[in-house]
Amino acid sequence: MRVEDLDTPAVLIDYDRLRANVERMAASVEETGVALRPHAKTHKMPEVARMQIARGSRGITVAKLGEAEVMAAAGIRDIFVAYPIVGEPKLERLCRLASENRIRVAADSWDVLEAMSDAAIRGGLCIDVLLEVDSGFGRCGLQSPEQAIELGRRALDLPGVRLVGLMGFGGQSYEAASREEIGRIGREEASQLVELRERLCEAGVELEEISVGSTPTSRYAARVPGVTEVRPGTYVFSDRTQVHLGWGSLNDCALTVLTTVVSRPTRERAIVDVGTKGLSSDAAPVPGYGVVVGHPEVSVEALTEEHGILRVGDGRGVPVGTKLRIVPNHACGVINMFDDVWVVSDGRVEDRWRVAARGRMR
Amino acid sequence: MRVEDLDTPAVLIDYDRLRANVERMAASVEETGVALRPHAKTHKMPEVARMQIARGSRGITVAKLGEAEVMAAAGIRDIFVAYPIVGEPKLERLCRLASENRIRVAADSWDVLEAMSDAAIRGGLCIDVLLEVDSGFGRCGLQSPEQAIELGRRALDLPGVRLVGLMGFGGQSYEAASREEIGRIGREEASQLVELRERLCEAGVELEEISVGSTPTSRYAARVPGVTEVRPGTYVFSDRTQVHLGWGSLNDCALTVLTTVVSRPTRERAIVDVGTKGLSSDAAPVPGYGVVVGHPEVSVEALTEEHGILRVGDGRGVPVGTKLRIVPNHACGVINMFDDVWVVSDGRVEDRWRVAARGRMR
Repeated sequence: MRVEDLDTPAVLIDYDRLRANVERMAASVEETGVALRPHAKTHKMPEVARMQIARGSRGITVAKLGEAEVMAAAGIRDIFVAYPIVGEPKLERLCRLASENRIRVAADSWDVLEAMSDAAIRGGLCIDVLLEVDSGFGRCGLQSPEQAIELGRRALDLPGVRLVGLMGFGGQSYEAASREEIGRIGREEASQLVELRERLCEAGVELEEISVGSTPTSRYAARVPGVTEVRPGTYVFSDRTQVHLGWGSLNDCALTVLTTVVSRPTRERAIVDVGTKGLSSDAAPVPGYGVVVGHPEVSVEALTEEHGILRVGDGRGVPVGTKLRIVPNHACGVINMFDDVWVVSDGRVEDRWRVAARGRMR
Repeated sequence: MRVEDLDTPAVLIDYDRLRANVERMAASVEETGVALRPHAKTHKMPEVARMQIARGSRGITVAKLGEAEVMAAAGIRDIFVAYPIVGEPKLERLCRLASENRIRVAADSWDVLEAMSDAAIRGGLCIDVLLEVDSGFGRCGLQSPEQAIELGRRALDLPGVRLVGLMGFGGQSYEAASREEIGRIGREEASQLVELRERLCEAGVELEEISVGSTPTSRYAARVPGVTEVRPGTYVFSDRTQVHLGWGSLNDCALTVLTTVVSRPTRERAIVDVGTKGLSSDAAPVPGYGVVVGHPEVSVEALTEEHGILRVGDGRGVPVGTKLRIVPNHACGVINMFDDVWVVSDGRVEDRWRVAARGRMR
């Protein structure tokens, strides 16, 4: 089938670009000697995780236990759940997962570690944990070296839990004004953890792993001596935000949303059949809601739930029925709403992949 | 099961509030003599559509053919697809649907009408159409009475297509600064269509239906003589935006997202296990991303994909493990991401409903 024959809205994954993105990140990390553990929240598909692992990733990262379960069932056995696991139902599931796979989790509090210890003892297991440190993003994470040392020392005597490393996330890189600033954030995130590991070691807490990074910061963070692992996610598809932040060009974006012009109310306005329920309301560092491939004169000016409102310049070339491809602001938000994607290559539809971990929110 | 025992994040639907919202809108429209055709995009669930119909709704509205198919399969037979249907695959599905149910669709162009006529003739059918008129929102719709009259007259001779009415949507009411302004927008949307129907009638195009409205504007539009149908959607659950615009209070919001505090990095900050992938990035007319029920001192300050970042005042009362309920900015955006919801009443979980039309984007 040709791409133009697909009904819309539909997510297209350009297989050749996907492969190239997987290759590019793998090569860039490989030369630093650091391990790559991509965040699967971007794609939620075992098919993509397998490509990443085939090209040298040591495993994957996920945010949700449900995602880990889907990936493990598909044969992906080395998974970092980069999220604090809270509550009995999840702890039971974590133990089941950990008994059959190589699972690590994040934690940043005694409360989380203690409950995990109880669950692990009941399950006759030992769970590997990375302590999360706030890299200046202001989300989760330990707030000071002193706090980390106190928690690390306290956890030494906790049965069923083994501290294996530190994790950070320099999410403030998404607000950076320049590549220099992104580089600085990535290096600071990494150095902070490397120095903290030294201090923890002096305090008797020995940790191997220093896990950092996002798509913008990974290439900078991976070059800081002492870092052992980077966790970029969005690079695999890329999107308008990543292009703005310097991860390749629009021609590297593997994910587009195919949409149809359904109305031409005025000469300057076209309406397409995808809105926030397909592209999300996620903003980019630049105005608008996406880039229309091959139509630099067209802007995605606004979205409502099921309508995209395009400004189309002189309006020629986009009559009702025209199919357009939109590079979204944020690929992860799009994948989160679609049940399947079409895999395309050279204008032809080669495959259909289910977004197997979509909706696995718990 | 008690609500507190549910794992998170989870969507809770308060059954009693849902019933009250269904009742309140039905009663408010009933006294005007106008028909109610709620927009099912908000709930995407046959269970809710059946409640609306049982309380007097003549049928439902949907945005997507896929939603119509799910609803028709569940026995809801009178459906207005308030969206221009474009492309052969959809036209074939529309004909199948229309051959077994009472289906109406929207259109605002000759292109759409002509292709629909061809498909209907092939299917041996006649499709009922409402012409969409731009009510000043600047999305779809005919731009002037002259344009509407020209299209209406032209369509008179089109086989397989029967013009039955006019539809508007005063979406600009969501930007209104006051209830007076919302009332004015609703009345203007209605009056514009009623007057246009007169002019069309003089031009030989007779139409019965005048279909208008949204949750904010319906009660005003329904009171304009000549209006025959209103299509509010979000009222059924309500949300933070609707409360701000005057549809009841927070205590009328039937949809909340149950979430767990997973991290307390600082005294003022709590992190919960739902972010944009559960609450959406949809903004409200006021800052923030939701209201935490029973905690007026807490604000939902920011969201990332899987984290909600809360400012918690003095931080007492929300330790790790605390379950909180969030009234989202926009209920429709939440439903669009969850596969199921828990139906609760008086603190107990009574049922689990599948969001059957979720993901039916085409």
